[in-house]
Amino acid sequence: MSNADIGLIGLAVMGQNLALNIADHGYTIAVYNRHHEKTDDFIALCRQREPSHERVQGHADLAGFVRAIKRPRKIVLLVKAGQPTDITINNLVPYLEAGDIVIDGGNAHWLDTIRREKELTAKGFHFIGSGVSGGETGARFGPSLMPGGSREAWASLEPIWRDIAAKVDADTGVPLPGAEPGKPVSGGVPCTAYVGADGSGHYVKMVHNGIEYIDMQLICEAYWLLKQLLDWDADAIGEVFREWNTGELSSYLIEITGDILGQRDPSGQGFLVDHVLDTAGQKGTGLWTASSALEQGVPANAIAEAVFARSLSALKDERLAASALLQGPEAASGHDPAELIPAIRDALYCSKICAYAQGFQLLAEAQKTYGWTLDFGTLAQIWRGGCIIRARFLQKITDAYQADPNLKNLMLDPYFRSSLHDGQAHWREVVALAVRNGIPTPAFGSALAYYDGYRSGSLPANLLQAQRDYFGAHTYERIDQPRGKFFHLDWPAADRPELPQ
Amino acid sequence: MSNADIGLIGLAVMGQNLALNIADHGYTIAVYNRHHEKTDDFIALCRQREPSHERVQGHADLAGFVRAIKRPRKIVLLVKAGQPTDITINNLVPYLEAGDIVIDGGNAHWLDTIRREKELTAKGFHFIGSGVSGGETGARFGPSLMPGGSREAWASLEPIWRDIAAKVDADTGVPLPGAEPGKPVSGGVPCTAYVGADGSGHYVKMVHNGIEYIDMQLICEAYWLLKQLLDWDADAIGEVFREWNTGELSSYLIEITGDILGQRDPSGQGFLVDHVLDTAGQKGTGLWTASSALEQGVPANAIAEAVFARSLSALKDERLAASALLQGPEAASGHDPAELIPAIRDALYCSKICAYAQGFQLLAEAQKTYGWTLDFGTLAQIWRGGCIIRARFLQKITDAYQADPNLKNLMLDPYFRSSLHDGQAHWREVVALAVRNGIPTPAFGSALAYYDGYRSGSLPANLLQAQRDYFGAHTYERIDQPRGKFFHLDWPAADRPELPQ
Repeated sequence: MSNADIGLIGLAVMGQNLALNIADHGYTIAVYNRHHEKTDDFIALCRQREPSHERVQGHADLAGFVRAIKRPRKIVLLVKAGQPTDITINNLVPYLEAGDIVIDGGNAHWLDTIRREKELTAKGFHFIGSGVSGGETGARFGPSLMPGGSREAWASLEPIWRDIAAKVDADTGVPLPGAEPGKPVSGGVPCTAYVGADGSGHYVKMVHNGIEYIDMQLICEAYWLLKQLLDWDADAIGEVFREWNTGELSSYLIEITGDILGQRDPSGQGFLVDHVLDTAGQKGTGLWTASSALEQGVPANAIAEAVFARSLSALKDERLAASALLQGPEAASGHDPAELIPAIRDALYCSKICAYAQGFQLLAEAQKTYGWTLDFGTLAQIWRGGCIIRARFLQKITDAYQADPNLKNLMLDPYFRSSLHDGQAHWREVVALAVRNGIPTPAFGSALAYYDGYRSGSLPANLLQAQRDYFGAHTYERIDQPRGKFFHLDWPAADRPELPQ
Repeated sequence: MSNADIGLIGLAVMGQNLALNIADHGYTIAVYNRHHEKTDDFIALCRQREPSHERVQGHADLAGFVRAIKRPRKIVLLVKAGQPTDITINNLVPYLEAGDIVIDGGNAHWLDTIRREKELTAKGFHFIGSGVSGGETGARFGPSLMPGGSREAWASLEPIWRDIAAKVDADTGVPLPGAEPGKPVSGGVPCTAYVGADGSGHYVKMVHNGIEYIDMQLICEAYWLLKQLLDWDADAIGEVFREWNTGELSSYLIEITGDILGQRDPSGQGFLVDHVLDTAGQKGTGLWTASSALEQGVPANAIAEAVFARSLSALKDERLAASALLQGPEAASGHDPAELIPAIRDALYCSKICAYAQGFQLLAEAQKTYGWTLDFGTLAQIWRGGCIIRARFLQKITDAYQADPNLKNLMLDPYFRSSLHDGQAHWREVVALAVRNGIPTPAFGSALAYYDGYRSGSLPANLLQAQRDYFGAHTYERIDQPRGKFFHLDWPAADRPELPQ
């Protein structure tokens, strides 16, 4: 009997939570896991808990699982990215019928999604690659969902995706209370929308994660400057973040930073953060973002710096050994907090604007390469709730693109431009202070170099291109000649004639 | 009649020049090109020129070309990287016999080289991927050659490769005059050596190019600071570089910079560099290096910044538009050259040490991933002549690795360490000056952030990892517990217990 509204394969924590979220919204959902014990355990748990969880049906065999779903079937995969996803799809295909829709909710590489969409479409099925952001809590109570694929398949999936997504207030863009950890809500604007064709949803999710990396790194640099220059304890610095969270910087990451810094160590003295080892892990989407920026020729240097900062943090033993050998200035303490804190706040905010500008520049370039048509205002909108980078700030990005859909760079929007103008004196002061005091701020510094580079009508690449012409005959253009006219100087010749190419 | 010592396929300028170089050294060489007109033209040219060029034999068909080469055959490919290389190999294979050696001298991606080596070895042939650096002039009169493949095949290729490579003085490491554009020489130490298995030669060549990118960018930033802060003309700045070229910074790139900056504009007033458009091209190896660093988890941020700086330079129209909208400080002129020039010199030298440290860190990590055993001292040695980054400095790197083959990071070597200590006050001053004056110096700044990060026993990644644990249950380690013990704080719980994982 086919009575399930949707199916889901993969019952690790993300899959379980998304299934419960779907059931909470009144849908009957069939679930399947490669190891059926996991399915059994999950179903047993469901039966013990809320009534809505009766709507979760466990299946031990794939054929029965597929048969249980109403046609055209919607089957969500939450399995490991890479080969496990391909294996799952291959196992599933024999049971599918024309028009069925497979939705990959994992962190797939967008090129895999493009390939899979092509393969399944050729077989008469639909494939949607949907970014799912917000971690376990998001999956359970309202994630941000970034679906890419055919519009036809999206029309079929949309009602469910809108129901289970996080919601924000229609007027303010602020996440509704229920969209935070807690109960699902059905009012408000859902944090999902059609992104574009094939791999676009996963690409956008990847860029979201790249922005998340730099957002976190910027917060860490602000924390470190406050700690080194004021010599305050963690909770006192936490208070600064809690204060910042009431203003323009208000965001989930600033909020949890304030919370974390106030956390006492449950297994010792003082504050937890002072006992946490300073090595950060990473799982791939940050470096994919930076690599894609390199390939697309988009100067997303701050995003790359955030990835490299994690790599450097992982070299703990090397750093400890080096700290005994490589000298630097002692960080001077005793700064006036009333001056320093607003300066660091401005440095953080200006750097953040640059980081988001880089993310959106990357999306703008990628859509040309992959033939997508992205709506940047909408993307910022669906990030306002549910996901890790949710922030009041994103409403400003939506406003910017709604005011000017052809905006070349976020920094040029009047609001962001004036924020950069207002904050830049502080920003420069803070980076100079860090440099003089030997405190590494690769993200603040690279964002500022990006700002100064982008607003430079002239850069020293004239010399660089001349060097390339000198040793490799790569030719150059001239500022006093039309673009596209190339010249080569015959450097080895005695009279060095300039040869039009 | 098989009388050719070696064969070469691909008669674009690199192939022609390498063939002439080989012939100059007394070898008989068979050449082949897909379009035989090119072969005919090249042979006609050879006949008109030096007697040694009689040793170049043209072939119009591939079978005859292969038959003309003594067994085991050595056949060098200088065709386009990517698919053209695969097509050429596939065409060639039917004519090869057991033990024949194919040498790819193009800029192949190392993963392609690994694949091709495996495929050809399985068929009973040998495959060597050899980096060839030095551009057209290097190919003609002495390149730096970085071969990877089986030792057996290398033994067969080695005499020719040593003969045609650039040569440096055995004592000083300085390129011999003849190894510069001019006549080939046979004395001195050749700039080639066995690199390692399969793709290692091409990987090392790629990292060479990544270092070349950052070397050039650092020079550009020094030039730009001098120009903006002193307001001198190009030739006066060129004089600074010519002076620098007599000291520790002495290198091919500094030398040509001095030459370029003194070059008058052949088609107008003033100096050429002031008329060259400030958009730099790139061909891929720089971004491959940065991407590989991201994947390997090696914090090569300065190399990535150099790639992004080229991308930003390419956005000329956007920058021009932005320059009218985004404000910054006016660069203050009137600095004292006697103070500023040595400060910029030190900033350049310290940044350069960091850039090379990153390149060698990347090689150290890549060899683990790909199972190579690289000899860093030897690699620095074969870069002393022939290639674009050739520099007096490389001898210091060789010395450093000979003194301590297990050196963890170049910055820790006593010589480089003391250079960093001596130069860092100036370096910090210059970066702070740039930041305050709105002059973008992404490479100087990122290199300094790398230095300060690497010498930091503690970094703010404790907060970052706590954030990851907060929203994604990614766990953390503790500084007061052994490495490898992981904890998770149950953040949503009221009492927030710390749970060993």
